[in-house]
Formats: sequence, structure tokens, C-alpha cells
Amino acid sequence: MAERSAELEPISQPGRVADSDEGIGLDELGLAARNHGMPLEAMRYDVTPLGLHYLLTHYDIPETSADDWTLTIAGLVDHPLELSIAEVQSLPRVTTAVTLECAGNGRARMLPRPVSQPWLHEAVGTMEWTGTPLRPLLERAGVDARTVDVVFTGADHGVDRGIEQDYARSLPLTEALLDDVLLVYGANSAPLLPQHGYPLRLVVPGWYGMAHVKWLRTIELIDHDFDGFQQSAYRIRESADDPGRPITRIEPRALVIPPGWPDFMSRSRFLRPGQLMLEGRAWSGWGAITAVEVTVDAGLTWDEAELAPATHGWAWRRWKLPWHAAEGRYSISARAADDTGRGQSGRQPWNRGGFANPTTQEVDVLVTSQAASR
Amino acid sequence: MAERSAELEPISQPGRVADSDEGIGLDELGLAARNHGMPLEAMRYDVTPLGLHYLLTHYDIPETSADDWTLTIAGLVDHPLELSIAEVQSLPRVTTAVTLECAGNGRARMLPRPVSQPWLHEAVGTMEWTGTPLRPLLERAGVDARTVDVVFTGADHGVDRGIEQDYARSLPLTEALLDDVLLVYGANSAPLLPQHGYPLRLVVPGWYGMAHVKWLRTIELIDHDFDGFQQSAYRIRESADDPGRPITRIEPRALVIPPGWPDFMSRSRFLRPGQLMLEGRAWSGWGAITAVEVTVDAGLTWDEAELAPATHGWAWRRWKLPWHAAEGRYSISARAADDTGRGQSGRQPWNRGGFANPTTQEVDVLVTSQAASR
Repeated sequence: MAERSAELEPISQPGRVADSDEGIGLDELGLAARNHGMPLEAMRYDVTPLGLHYLLTHYDIPETSADDWTLTIAGLVDHPLELSIAEVQSLPRVTTAVTLECAGNGRARMLPRPVSQPWLHEAVGTMEWTGTPLRPLLERAGVDARTVDVVFTGADHGVDRGIEQDYARSLPLTEALLDDVLLVYGANSAPLLPQHGYPLRLVVPGWYGMAHVKWLRTIELIDHDFDGFQQSAYRIRESADDPGRPITRIEPRALVIPPGWPDFMSRSRFLRPGQLMLEGRAWSGWGAITAVEVTVDAGLTWDEAELAPATHGWAWRRWKLPWHAAEGRYSISARAADDTGRGQSGRQPWNRGGFANPTTQEVDVLVTSQAASR
Repeated sequence: MAERSAELEPISQPGRVADSDEGIGLDELGLAARNHGMPLEAMRYDVTPLGLHYLLTHYDIPETSADDWTLTIAGLVDHPLELSIAEVQSLPRVTTAVTLECAGNGRARMLPRPVSQPWLHEAVGTMEWTGTPLRPLLERAGVDARTVDVVFTGADHGVDRGIEQDYARSLPLTEALLDDVLLVYGANSAPLLPQHGYPLRLVVPGWYGMAHVKWLRTIELIDHDFDGFQQSAYRIRESADDPGRPITRIEPRALVIPPGWPDFMSRSRFLRPGQLMLEGRAWSGWGAITAVEVTVDAGLTWDEAELAPATHGWAWRRWKLPWHAAEGRYSISARAADDTGRGQSGRQPWNRGGFANPTTQEVDVLVTSQAASR
């Protein structure tokens, strides 16, 4: 990996963990103000409307144009390729719904809190991505037998912890050759928006967001494990010295659509007594969701929700559970399990980057029959 | 105004101001994570792409449909009207670029900090809104001479400081009758997105965002000053007891497109020495922008930027200033003035709601010739 630049140190500090009583800082707020999660009521939509999908841009959204864009496939290939966007769009077209989640989702609820983009639990979304499969292009280029990793590099440029870089991430060759990995130029029946990688991005169904490289310019095949900055940044580490293990696919998670109405500031909920349907979504990047359990009493008791038929392998699954809401106060959570045996087991094994936090959401609800002031 | 509900108090607290050393709280973060500002590099676009315009939803985004929507115009009119979306769309059509800014923009940089949506300086955007003028519809309904205020009520429902409410704001009749006030059903050549008020919203060019009522269902003409919650919330107050004065039109502001590249966490900038163009936008809801001044030395010296020709009365104006960036560290700010004599004078007259903060942005820049690590 590249050396840290001493000259950039004044503007680019090492990663750190907040003190236990330390509020969110202006640096974290700066990221929260420009990036955003998906308002959880948007789980009502099978496909997340434009502008509501979560968004994390590491550096700036680059100024790009489909007219002069070139995708280069190089490195350990027999025939390096250079493709225009028009050429990519002339290849076989696939549209598929994929749930993406940021690996740091839930980070701001960890104690102590790793200082980075401070997600609570809303860094998720599902769009219908349109593109062409990567595998036939790699086969056309001719994959050298020595290939270990495939490195995807975007046009977004900046510095992180003293390292200047174009954003780059790799996939092991076996993952890059899976049929559902796509070079994507459209979402929700429209051209990619600038912030989602226009004119071209990678979509790797099942993987956390960091793998879906936006503003994709080069694909390079190499004979060793890629050691770029982002490869090192996205690891589960217990301490700064721990080499850790890489973050890959999305762990199972269920979220509740908060019922009733919110308070503006606290986002606590209130609603009238009566029969209602609790609803939400669940997803996993490892396998099919097989169970969602819901509690309204802060985990004392759990009920199994009804799962809607699975619509697509990589899109979230809808669930519902009837609830007779009597007057009182409630704390609602949901947890998911998948067919690989993975599940939201409750307690968070803390890690220094604040990744893959399985902690369940806690929705505070007041059920009251009294007509509130209007 | 409605009475505060004691029963809702546990979930809905009075407004407050943070202690001087208090970090951003989880409640403020909850708002920052679901709402979002406009990444400042998006000032490069005359019209803000979908999904990048700032967004503040007080309660939840309601579930709405154009098919069964009815707009009611009632109160002090000769002929109350009920209009479907198809009927509104059959009326004369206007498309106009309008810059919207949240009245709370800059709130999180106030000391002490009012606790609410914690904007830094990015709560702005410019879209091309498509709709029909309000005035002919009010004239068709027949405005009673006793009318003082016109009350616009949306479908978004919730509680704020113990008061349950549909979001509602009024305009004085004279403002509501201005030719450029629109009932809007489209933006950027597409139907309104759910989060921007689908299927119908108000656009009041020149006013801060709180006036542009989304998910608009009723327009009621009344013979007194409207005293609804949001009317009381958006006032410039020095203390909780101060009756204050209402917030109306947007004060002048200029922002710089941060030059060079960012550090991920600090958003400080770095770039190579050489000649470059500083660029940005400036706007005012009171009049035309007449001057933008820029400093690169934290306010020691200011240079006048060149203004692009004004494109539209209510859209932001582009400005530019050549800069020879020599190696070193800089702090860049811009300030605007308009033809009504209003301007960003520097010091912020603190107010309890954190509104209309004229403080200039401060962009920290390191200019370095040394090739940083890659």
C-alpha cells in the first residue's frame, strides 16, 4: 500500500475512536450533511425512488460525461480492451433489483463510536440497475491463469488518512466472474444520476456498498491480493494493529417501517390504539432470508413475521406482522436470519471501523387514544 | 395556536439550545441522516440533478397518489374549488428555475447551537419547477375582501414540541397573489419525486423553504394572521419569550465550490500550485445579486468576483474569480450583496431558532507541489 504523505497530515488525520462521552463532531456532521440515508418510511416502496437511496461519496462527485468516457480492461489479459459507453450499452442488457447497504451502517450506535460517516441504521436502498454482465467482457479480454484479483478504479479522487488516491477496490477473480456482477449505466429506468456513478459503475449483488465502484474507469487483473487503501480500510479489526479480515457480503438485517407519526426532533412515534400491520424489509448478501422476528416489548418476547414471496435473489424481502396496539409505550425491533445460518444475534462484536453492526433498530412508540391538540 | 399536549411530552420536548461544549446529539444526527444537504460540488450544475437538491422533511414522507388527490380552495372565497391533479395539469403551464434554501441553513455553526436539523451550509438547491400560477385559481374562487392570510396545508402529519399537526404555513394575501407563486407538479422535466411533494406542492420564489408547502391538500383564506405552529416556529427570536419577527425571504448568500480534492473525513481541500478559477453561486430572495467578494486569506483581503449574466430572477447566479494558487495554506470564503442593500455583513446576530445565519463558509485549502503518495 502507498506510504502516508507527511505533507498532507495537517488536513488528513489517522482514524480514531470517539471518547465514550463525546458527541458527534463537526467532521462527522460534515459527512452526514452531504451524504444521506434512506428515510425508513421509504421501505414502503419495492424499488427506492430516485434520491431516496442511501448515498456515500468518499470524495467529491466527479464531473463526468458519457460522451468521452473510456472503460479500460487491462493487466493480465490477452487482449486489453477500451470501450466507450455506447459500446457497453450495445452489449446484452440486464435489469435487476439489488439491495445495497453501506458496510458502516449502524456505526454511530457503536460504543465507543468509530469516527467516520455516522450512520444510524438507514444506509440502505434497492434500485433496479440496468447494465451488462462483466464476465463475457473479461472472457473476451482473455483472463490470464495467474490472475488473483480484479481491481476496479473510479474517477473519484481524494486523500484519506494521508494517502492520496483514486477510489479503488478489488474482487477475487472467482467473485468477479459470477454471472450477476454488472457494469451498470442506468437505474430505475433512467440514466445513472451523477451521484450514483454516471456514466458507469460496478454492481456486485450481495456485497456491501464499498465494492460497487462508481465512475468506473479501469479494470485491471493482477497476480496478487490488491493492497490499495480502500482494501485495507474496509476490514473488521479489533484494534489499530489487528490485520483483521476483509469485509465482503452483507450480513442479515431486518428493519421496521416506523408505525404511526413521528415527533420532529426525537423521531419517536405516536399512534392511536387499534389493529394495525407492522411491516418492514429484510435482506442478506449471503443467502435467502428465512425468518424475521419482531418484538414490541424491547426484546422480552418475539413473534415471527410473515414473509412475502421472494421477488429476487438480491433484493430485500417484505415482511409483515399484525399488531393490536393497546394504549401504552413500546419499543419495537426486528431481526433477520438467512438460509446460511447467519442472523442478527443481538450483541455487537465491536470493531474499530464500525462495520457490519448487527444491532437491531429500536423504534419508540407511544399508543394514545387521547386526541392530541391540533 | 393549539395547546401543547401533556401526554405527548415524553416523546416531544420543548426547543432548546445546546451547551457551549456539547457535541451534536443523536437526535440531531437522526435528522441529518435522513435529510440531506446538497454536496457543494453540485453548484457546478445550473439546475441541481434529482436527488442532490437539499431535503428537509419535518415528519414522514406521506404515501400519496395523483389518482385520488384533491386540492381544496376554501374559506373566504365566493366559490370553493375542488381540483384533481389532472385538472391542475390542464391549466396554463409554467416552468421556472428557483433556488430554495432552508431557513436553518448554517444553524450548526451558530454558538451556542440551537438544537434542530443541524445544517452546516449546504441546505440549498435549484430545480426547474413546472406548475400553474396560483393567482388565476384564487381569482376564479373569488377572494373575499376580508382576506388577510392564505393558509396552505400539506398531508405530512406529526408532532413538534407537543403539538400534533398537519404541516401548515400561510402567506399574506399580497404575497400569495404575486404572479410567480406556483402550484407545482413537476421538477427537472419529471413528475415530482415523493420527497419533494408529489403530487402537488407550493413554490413561492424568493422565500425560504418552509413556505413551499409539500403534499399540498388545502388552501384556506382567512380574515386574520394565521397562528399555526409552523408560523410560530419560524421566527427570529433572541429568547424563548421574545415574540420575534417572521422569517420570509432568503437573505443574500454566496458559496464557493471547494477547489481541488477533499480529505474524506475533514473535507479540507488540497490541490497543485498553478492558475485556476474559483467558482460558486450567489442568491437572494429580496433582489438581484449585484456583487460577490472572495477572500483566500481568511478575510484579510477581498477581491470582487465576476458575475455571470443573470439567467432568471429567482435562480442562483454563477460567479468566478481567477486565482494563482501558490504553495501554502488558505482559507477561502465568499460573500454576496443584492440590489436592495442587503448583504452578508459577517457577524451573526444570534437567534434562538438558528435561522438566516449569514456567516460565510470557510474552505481550508492546502496548495502543495509535492506529488502525494498514490
